[in-house]
Amino acid sequence: MTAVTYELIKTDKKSKARRGRVHTPHGTIETPVFMPVGTAATVKAMRPDEIKEMGAEIILSNTYHLYLRPGHQIVKAAGGLHKFMNWDRAILTDSGGFQVFSLGDLRKITEEGVEFRSHIDGSKHMLSPEKSMEVQNALGSDIMMAFDECAPYPADRSYVKKSLERTTRWLARCKEAHKNTEQQSLFGIMQGGMYQDLRYQSAMEIVEMDLPGYAIGGLSVGEPKELMYEVLDYCVEYLPGNKPRYLMGVGSPDYLFEGVERGVDMFDCVLPTRIARNGTAMTSMGKVVIKNAAYEKDFTALDPECDCYTCRNYSKAYLRHLFKANEILSSMLLTNHNLHFLVNLMKGIRKAIEEDRFAEYKRDFYNKYGI
Amino acid sequence: MTAVTYELIKTDKKSKARRGRVHTPHGTIETPVFMPVGTAATVKAMRPDEIKEMGAEIILSNTYHLYLRPGHQIVKAAGGLHKFMNWDRAILTDSGGFQVFSLGDLRKITEEGVEFRSHIDGSKHMLSPEKSMEVQNALGSDIMMAFDECAPYPADRSYVKKSLERTTRWLARCKEAHKNTEQQSLFGIMQGGMYQDLRYQSAMEIVEMDLPGYAIGGLSVGEPKELMYEVLDYCVEYLPGNKPRYLMGVGSPDYLFEGVERGVDMFDCVLPTRIARNGTAMTSMGKVVIKNAAYEKDFTALDPECDCYTCRNYSKAYLRHLFKANEILSSMLLTNHNLHFLVNLMKGIRKAIEEDRFAEYKRDFYNKYGI
Repeated sequence: MTAVTYELIKTDKKSKARRGRVHTPHGTIETPVFMPVGTAATVKAMRPDEIKEMGAEIILSNTYHLYLRPGHQIVKAAGGLHKFMNWDRAILTDSGGFQVFSLGDLRKITEEGVEFRSHIDGSKHMLSPEKSMEVQNALGSDIMMAFDECAPYPADRSYVKKSLERTTRWLARCKEAHKNTEQQSLFGIMQGGMYQDLRYQSAMEIVEMDLPGYAIGGLSVGEPKELMYEVLDYCVEYLPGNKPRYLMGVGSPDYLFEGVERGVDMFDCVLPTRIARNGTAMTSMGKVVIKNAAYEKDFTALDPECDCYTCRNYSKAYLRHLFKANEILSSMLLTNHNLHFLVNLMKGIRKAIEEDRFAEYKRDFYNKYGI
Repeated sequence: MTAVTYELIKTDKKSKARRGRVHTPHGTIETPVFMPVGTAATVKAMRPDEIKEMGAEIILSNTYHLYLRPGHQIVKAAGGLHKFMNWDRAILTDSGGFQVFSLGDLRKITEEGVEFRSHIDGSKHMLSPEKSMEVQNALGSDIMMAFDECAPYPADRSYVKKSLERTTRWLARCKEAHKNTEQQSLFGIMQGGMYQDLRYQSAMEIVEMDLPGYAIGGLSVGEPKELMYEVLDYCVEYLPGNKPRYLMGVGSPDYLFEGVERGVDMFDCVLPTRIARNGTAMTSMGKVVIKNAAYEKDFTALDPECDCYTCRNYSKAYLRHLFKANEILSSMLLTNHNLHFLVNLMKGIRKAIEEDRFAEYKRDFYNKYGI
């Protein structure tokens, strides 16, 4: 029995959308799910009790950031990441791979792993499959992600092939290095860029390792939306139906709907929290850029259909004032709203799948949101 | 009957410390009280429900800031400051005087009032007793402060005398201009610098106007601590015992104790919220500078005697990590703690006065805090 298991409840009659549950040592996650991102052991501008209150059952945290600061040994000494950050529900940690690959000139890739310099102080480090597992084991996340390379877009076929094959070899090393299988589960990551045969090759190689879950990496990296949907279509087909499927780095409402429709169970993205700090809210009627002069005397709620703390208690005029005055409460209230919006959207999607009206739910949402 | 009234419950046997209540249209305030500052219609990094939860019964907000942004007419159109910022307990607003006088080269004082340029966009404005009342009436605060001049320290006698006499004339104009006496009460402000006879003169002039409360202004402006205590001693004597006494701009624990001992009922200061954002906590064992390396692996609470949200849920190691990573949650958690600390300190002081052990309570606190 693995630490994390998947339970399929129901599949939509007209699409690949599915309703399920991911069971973890820190509770059950109803899927499809959106996971708020808490990069540095905090979902920016949020108290954990607020995140719980809105119904989030899992958050994501970043191995690269925590390895550098405060250091995984400190988190371990604190009793693990859950205790350190006061979050007793499930946590998924990424592998650090995406971050170190993004460092550009500051990193060097070898078969062993990636040598890089810290973005904080320039100090030299090495992240490898073994090191990533060591760090994630120390953090104690429920779901650990494999150390992979997310190939850029565009990238030529030979590079993508070499890269995905190395990612497979790294996955085998991750599986070997993972030391706490009873409390933590390792998910594999499919790569292969925008090449169907390479996606197939990657899927076959990683599914062979029989892991408790699989992610689709290397999408939403700058490719056209239509291409992403096309690739996603066949990616999902190559993954086993009895394991959760996680589409990495995706969080706009349309991507969530399109992902769910194609059979994805898990999503994460910094989008809702980042745009909140920049003064943008997602609402049932589309995006609201709160600094706009139109809201100066608008004493209505951000979203009349929302029952989050922000919408229950504040007007757009007040939120605009806070944003313009550069007040921390602006980030707090808009982040609360945006996360609540996505958590609630997923709740609506789950209910729609249960009641066989996912297509209608999607159509109605798109119409109102303006997609 | 004025909007705000004072009820004296008990006076300490060995000092001038007194236990009372200030009744306002938005609830009763147990005194002595510390008032958290919410400059721009928000106590920085705090949700109002957090401030309520810690037991604060009144907050302060700044007329100068709200006049410039978002503008008092917008706050009025929102239904007043309480509704605008979602705070249904009492609010005290200052007059804007202190802020415009602090603008230095950007302001010009005349008998009419103060002409100044906005620190935000350089636009030209005039604040006068009438304008300050108009703005504070629009905001709808429970307690409005008179438009006064807080003389600098040091200042020569003739300047201070002229300034306090103008402040008296301005107070008469404030009283005349105040348009909402049933819902809002105007407090006068005593000036007079460090000159005993001028303090006496100021007191006699303003007490004559029979206002619902009086503040002591012009202290904690750079003078030595001992001088402040000496001046405070006689200032309190000159004010009537049946009205609340408010010492403006004071919030360090020793100032609070010394003020209470001399008969002050109300205090405000940005200190606890400002130092929180800079990473400093007030605790029962003195100040904690959270970035210190000593706390890197300190998994104990900030203050073992504190039961605030922060101390119940987080370690110094986590708080240090948040501060070093420049996370908003650092400001949120430290502000919560510091305000809880002062609100709780005042609760302890009130109980000590009730139980005739104020001197012992003060001595024990000073010993532990290191004063």
